[in-house]
Amino acid sequence: MTRRLADLPTPALVIDSGALDRNIARMAEALPGDRLRPHVKAHKCTGLARRQADAGHYGFTCATIRECEGMAAAGLGTDLLLANEVLDARRLGALVAGGARVTLAVDSPETIEAAVAGGVREVVIDVNVGLPRCGCPPEQAGALAEQARNRGLQVRGVMGYEGHVVGLPDEAERARMCRDSMELLVAAHEAVGGELVTAGGTGTYLLNTWASEIQAGSYALMDSAYAKLGLPFEQAVFVLASVVSASPEWAVGDAGLKAFGMDHGNPDLPGSQVWFCSDEHVTFSPPRPVGDRLLLTPGHVDPTLAMHERAWLFSGDEVSGSWDIDLRGW
Amino acid sequence: MTRRLADLPTPALVIDSGALDRNIARMAEALPGDRLRPHVKAHKCTGLARRQADAGHYGFTCATIRECEGMAAAGLGTDLLLANEVLDARRLGALVAGGARVTLAVDSPETIEAAVAGGVREVVIDVNVGLPRCGCPPEQAGALAEQARNRGLQVRGVMGYEGHVVGLPDEAERARMCRDSMELLVAAHEAVGGELVTAGGTGTYLLNTWASEIQAGSYALMDSAYAKLGLPFEQAVFVLASVVSASPEWAVGDAGLKAFGMDHGNPDLPGSQVWFCSDEHVTFSPPRPVGDRLLLTPGHVDPTLAMHERAWLFSGDEVSGSWDIDLRGW
Repeated sequence: MTRRLADLPTPALVIDSGALDRNIARMAEALPGDRLRPHVKAHKCTGLARRQADAGHYGFTCATIRECEGMAAAGLGTDLLLANEVLDARRLGALVAGGARVTLAVDSPETIEAAVAGGVREVVIDVNVGLPRCGCPPEQAGALAEQARNRGLQVRGVMGYEGHVVGLPDEAERARMCRDSMELLVAAHEAVGGELVTAGGTGTYLLNTWASEIQAGSYALMDSAYAKLGLPFEQAVFVLASVVSASPEWAVGDAGLKAFGMDHGNPDLPGSQVWFCSDEHVTFSPPRPVGDRLLLTPGHVDPTLAMHERAWLFSGDEVSGSWDIDLRGW
Repeated sequence: MTRRLADLPTPALVIDSGALDRNIARMAEALPGDRLRPHVKAHKCTGLARRQADAGHYGFTCATIRECEGMAAAGLGTDLLLANEVLDARRLGALVAGGARVTLAVDSPETIEAAVAGGVREVVIDVNVGLPRCGCPPEQAGALAEQARNRGLQVRGVMGYEGHVVGLPDEAERARMCRDSMELLVAAHEAVGGELVTAGGTGTYLLNTWASEIQAGSYALMDSAYAKLGLPFEQAVFVLASVVSASPEWAVGDAGLKAFGMDHGNPDLPGSQVWFCSDEHVTFSPPRPVGDRLLLTPGHVDPTLAMHERAWLFSGDEVSGSWDIDLRGW
């Protein structure tokens, strides 16, 4: 029996299969093969990662150890980059011992020692290129690389995420600041060596011509924040809700703070004004009748995906299958 | 071997066992037995709910069908109130058939029919008392109750959540608006009948003297939003993080947007200034050394708990056990 969107219990995370395929194809055309290292933190889903692998990208970026473990278990561990610092790398060492290739970001003597102690063999030097977060000062990258090599690690290159740039609305400013960041990274790379200059995101995937590979993740599913940049990717993920209550002035859908990452604000409901979200509700106007179905667009895809156990794939009104969001947690 | 906080992998949701016990005892003293119907949406944890049951509260409030199912499966289904409207009540009917007592909120002909069709036998009439969300207009409550009884349902009373009031910082205003809301609810109750006038939250647990039972949930664990009200409950839940990167100006902990409900803003780190959260990071100043442990206070407890698989109970530096956050999802 064909399952339809109208049959799904709500709230439900739903993915427009055609839009997803087009996004993946469009990116693979712009950045084929190992020019893209898709970031799985945006979807936390090995089912979706497999589609990205089928499009030619065999290397992946991860943000957590659990993401690395899940990718390796799903047979997608050919070349995993944990683009984050860790203080206990033993679970990563176990993956390496099991045949996965895992490269770890390091930015300090402590994180180099953690890599060694945990049994990780390959690292990149994480360089701060302007975002006040992780990464060593650019001028220290060479010395850290030497230190890592002296401890027996293979240094594959540098990483520097221009996270303060990827969301800038003005494209010219985004391009200029991307260049400024990448000049820092390229200089660090000269001191570090190695084949990788890994950086970038969905907002800079075409602008960042300095990186050897781009770590974009959001492009596959998109969100209302990235939609404002005018990128050639379609909104592919939504939260399906049902109207459970209606008044003459507003109505209430059954998806709220536990179904949406809220750091970029309320979800969007096209044609409506979203008033506010409660734990399990979204209040909006103008009202719609009890029983109506709503497709809400999340403000920020990454934390939204992490709130759901499962995503349903749909085409038109038909549900064609589902994927577990199987890389959640830590 | 004794496990210590310092041994836990991070990020980790941790509960101060003594603070939790004191909060539960303090509330049970103020609202003993069935004067409190603890709301499990605040913690989504049957382990914690059992502590509340041990303190004398045998009835519980739920926000989702999954919460009802989990509570019943844990043997805590003596008197569950689903304080929310649903359009498909079949899973609730199955719980009733299995011996749980489940009372469902209804606010429209459609939700009454859903209760009947799903096999639910007991309802409360959900009345709008000022929060633009669910609930019928007060003057329609009597007619809805009659309609429900005509359809064979037992109407246990009325519900009216003063959610627009519970967080007001000024106590006198909170008291005044609570009274305004409850006068609407009491009037609706006169038209509806039944033994229950169910309402209230942590912010009005003492002010709301009209309700027969209070639905407070946050009091057990608290958050930085409720902390501002000067209530006699202690902060009992934190997210434990590790400093993974440090610069001369800031440092970075390994807990971010996927570890904190963000609708009330950034988590608090006492003695520090939190700059921003990324998916897996919190940037703050002044910096602390790599390897330091941080106890961050969530801004909003409910969505924060829903992001974690497990909570660790601690006392001082010692970890005494863990609870699954087993009521997540829908």
